[in-house]
Amino acid sequence: MSAAVQIESRRESHARLLTFRDRVNELLSKQLTDLPAAPERLLEAMRYALLTPGKRIRPLLTYASAECFGLALEAVDDAAMAVEIIHAYSLIHDDLPAMDDDDLRRGRPTCHKAFDEATAILAGDALQAFAFELLAQTDSSASQRLRMIKILAQACGPAGMAGGQAIDLAAVGQDLSLQQLMHMHRLKTGALIRAAVLMPASLAGVDDANLEALTTYGDRIGLAFQIRDDILDVTGDPEVTGKKSGADQALEKPTFPSLIGVDSSNRMMHELIEESVSAVECLNDPTLLVALARYIVSRDS
Amino acid sequence: MSAAVQIESRRESHARLLTFRDRVNELLSKQLTDLPAAPERLLEAMRYALLTPGKRIRPLLTYASAECFGLALEAVDDAAMAVEIIHAYSLIHDDLPAMDDDDLRRGRPTCHKAFDEATAILAGDALQAFAFELLAQTDSSASQRLRMIKILAQACGPAGMAGGQAIDLAAVGQDLSLQQLMHMHRLKTGALIRAAVLMPASLAGVDDANLEALTTYGDRIGLAFQIRDDILDVTGDPEVTGKKSGADQALEKPTFPSLIGVDSSNRMMHELIEESVSAVECLNDPTLLVALARYIVSRDS
Repeated sequence: MSAAVQIESRRESHARLLTFRDRVNELLSKQLTDLPAAPERLLEAMRYALLTPGKRIRPLLTYASAECFGLALEAVDDAAMAVEIIHAYSLIHDDLPAMDDDDLRRGRPTCHKAFDEATAILAGDALQAFAFELLAQTDSSASQRLRMIKILAQACGPAGMAGGQAIDLAAVGQDLSLQQLMHMHRLKTGALIRAAVLMPASLAGVDDANLEALTTYGDRIGLAFQIRDDILDVTGDPEVTGKKSGADQALEKPTFPSLIGVDSSNRMMHELIEESVSAVECLNDPTLLVALARYIVSRDS
Repeated sequence: MSAAVQIESRRESHARLLTFRDRVNELLSKQLTDLPAAPERLLEAMRYALLTPGKRIRPLLTYASAECFGLALEAVDDAAMAVEIIHAYSLIHDDLPAMDDDDLRRGRPTCHKAFDEATAILAGDALQAFAFELLAQTDSSASQRLRMIKILAQACGPAGMAGGQAIDLAAVGQDLSLQQLMHMHRLKTGALIRAAVLMPASLAGVDDANLEALTTYGDRIGLAFQIRDDILDVTGDPEVTGKKSGADQALEKPTFPSLIGVDSSNRMMHELIEESVSAVECLNDPTLLVALARYIVSRDS
């Protein structure tokens, strides 16, 4: 492929990914409009956390994975929403005073600052339940949907996101090895990212070799994503990232740059991305998955 | 039925319910033993909250409902565990400093006192995910299982338990009408109790008339259960209840006794129980459901 064709193809992929973002944003804002019996303030807090403009990386991964296996986007709309809802809930809880005690998220006051702590805890709790409700709302392809629920629930549980956050909190002020740091992030952010790409695969009923390829892809971009986050925390512009600079250091959190330096972190991130791209080369149509992997390392926020 | 036969029959029902309690206790303690990738302290907090001796009312309701429709107990083991796991998670979060700020639960330090606040939040979060994972762990009767997940997720969400807790917190120091108080409890405790009896019914594929009967049953015992809790808070022995006496009053929470007095509350509770019993008379074998309804109003803790 010539350089010009490559650039054109990347531009097309990027444009397609942006349509996915619009799609999930529209779906999410519809979902949280009428829930008759729910108290208004709680719904407001859920909307506040969920409908803030975000990168929507996880739903994009879900749609890109669906395209890769020739699934219609409609088939994974619930999965795309569910994974972003889980992400939104986890951010609310991570920001709480008892956790990372963050005041700012995506450039706006965090949920417990905009509302109050109790409402923030409940909004997170309710969002988690809502994600599973969405996945269970229709029983067409019931056994595939059950498998998606299992994938997502495992990704959220003690051996997934919640476990990773527990390790993260315990690691404050501690010296972690690179292996331990990677293990923590494989649970804390990696589990949900892997779930985002694996849910469509399970819906499409792909074979074990394909599942393994996707798992490797999700694992590598999950780590690369985290390294990029860590680097942005050191070198990023708070106006663009929407977060205070040096927040990790202030919290005495071990990060990739603090452990191996910014340059080595950068190198490691690019290696991981190349591994992720190689892993999915064997799949039917990995164009968008590859484009997403490249986007993850180039983003500024 | 003679009085002697009635007493004998009640004794038998009670003994059968106790075997359900043993059953769910054993299953729960097995479930939380080996989760290889999960951090130990988080698992400990989950076990601490879940494996404390409790009444296990919700799993008992699930098993009683299953028997009523001729289902094998094995068929609803996951549902029985899931509903108790959700209950345990909700207690952890309700007890948090930002919520009810309770130090004591079932006679022992609350989870955030025994561990720390962050671990308690995460243990609750992880338990919620774990409940849905359990329900999705096998795809036999996939569409019925999906319906169970939907029932449970709705019961936990903004129009269920989380919504009820939000109303409860907003009600502190406020004057609620009896209608508003009932609405709050229908969400806060009622939704999960209804889910406990409705999950087996959905597994058994019962018709709408039966579902309606069960919904009424669950609704009435849910409210009666709450009234009994409120009365125990005023008149109960802390040594037996395991909670501080007068905790609701100290928190300025509106309760049934504070609104209509202890005597009227008692009367209302007994009326609700009679309504619950009438509702399920039409069902195939409501013996255990009736026994449970009677137990709920007679309990001292």
